[in-house]
Amino acid sequence: MIKRKGLLLVVSGPSGAGKGTICKEILNRRKDIKLSVSATTRKPREGEVDGVNYFFLSKEEFSKMVDNGEFLEYASIYGNFYGTPKSAIIECLENGQDVILEIEMQGARQVKEVYGEGVFIFVLPPSLSELKNRIVGRGTETADEIEKRFSCAFEEIKQIDDYNYFIINKDVDTSVRELEEIISAEKNKVTRYKENIIEKFREEL
Amino acid sequence: MIKRKGLLLVVSGPSGAGKGTICKEILNRRKDIKLSVSATTRKPREGEVDGVNYFFLSKEEFSKMVDNGEFLEYASIYGNFYGTPKSAIIECLENGQDVILEIEMQGARQVKEVYGEGVFIFVLPPSLSELKNRIVGRGTETADEIEKRFSCAFEEIKQIDDYNYFIINKDVDTSVRELEEIISAEKNKVTRYKENIIEKFREEL
Repeated sequence: MIKRKGLLLVVSGPSGAGKGTICKEILNRRKDIKLSVSATTRKPREGEVDGVNYFFLSKEEFSKMVDNGEFLEYASIYGNFYGTPKSAIIECLENGQDVILEIEMQGARQVKEVYGEGVFIFVLPPSLSELKNRIVGRGTETADEIEKRFSCAFEEIKQIDDYNYFIINKDVDTSVRELEEIISAEKNKVTRYKENIIEKFREEL
Repeated sequence: MIKRKGLLLVVSGPSGAGKGTICKEILNRRKDIKLSVSATTRKPREGEVDGVNYFFLSKEEFSKMVDNGEFLEYASIYGNFYGTPKSAIIECLENGQDVILEIEMQGARQVKEVYGEGVFIFVLPPSLSELKNRIVGRGTETADEIEKRFSCAFEEIKQIDDYNYFIINKDVDTSVRELEEIISAEKNKVTRYKENIIEKFREEL
C-alpha cells in the first residue's frame, strides 16, 4: 500500500456562487471527508454546539492563538473574529484524512501562503446575472449590499489564477460530481506520492 | 459556453503494466475520445487497414516526414520506423477533441518535450512480481527477454517524475475509472481555461 497524506480541499469563490451548498452536499455523500470547524469570538446562537458548528472562544483566547501562529487564516467580520485552527487540520491530513474548508476568498489566499499543497477550488456561477438572481433570492441583503456584491463579483472572478480548479455551479449534483472527480484525480498525482511509490517498489528488489 | 481545447492523453509505463488494455477499454466506453493512429514503415499484417491500425508508409515517405518535423515522436524498432504524426493530432485538439496516445516511455519523453501541456499518465503494476507474472503469462518473450524487461522495470518506475498522474493497474475496471476521473479533473483545471473563463464573464459586463 502507498501511504497517502490527506488532501486539504479549499473551496472558495464569489458570494452567491453556491460554495456552501456544494460543501454541504459532498459531506452528506462522503463520510470519509471531514469539515474543518472554525473558531470564533461571536456568541453561540440558539442550538449551536461548541466544537461542532464553531469553537467558541473569548477574545483573549482567540488573540493568544493568533500570537502563537495557531491559525491557518483568520479575519475580523463585523467586530467578531473568525479563524481556522491549524493543528487539528494538520493532524487529520497526516493521518490520511481529507479535510474540506469552505472559506471566503481572502481567507483562501492566506491558506495558500502557508499550505500551498492544498487543493484550491473556485466555485463560479453560470453567469453574472444568475449570481445576481441568487443573491436577490436569498433576501438577506439590502439593495445596496446586493449592488456592492454584484459589482465586486467580476473583480473576484479575475482572481481565479490563485486556484487549481474551477467548478461552474449550474446544478449541485453536477458540481459535487466534478468535485469528487477532482479529489480522485488528486490522489493519482505523481507529485504527491512519488517518493512513496518508488519506495514501495524498491522494497521488492 | 467556455471554449475548451482537447486533451492529449499520453499513456505510458513499463512493459506488462497493462497500458494497452486500459486504452482499449476506455475507447470502448468513451466514444468522445479518439485514438491516435501511428505511422510505420513495416508491412501491413493480414487484416490491418491503412489509416485505421497504422498509416503504412515507405521508408522514403517516413524519412521525409521526419525531416519536415511532422512527428510528435518517432523511433526505430527492429529495423522498422514507428512515429506519431503531429498535424492530425493538433487539428483534433484545436477542435476540442480529446486524443489518447498509448506509447513507450522513450516516445512519451519526446512528446513531453514538444507538447508539455499533454496529460502524462504512468501505468504501474501492483507489484514487480505481478509484472513478471504478466510478462511470463503473455508467452511472447523468451526467458532472457523476460529477465531483461523485469530488471529494467524498477529503473523505468524511477522515471515516474516525468508524468503528471499514476495509475496502479490492479484491475482494468478501477484503472479505467481512475483515468476517466483524471480526464474530468483536467477539464476543470484553471491553468487550461483561465482566459476563456474571464472572457466569458467579461462579456456580461
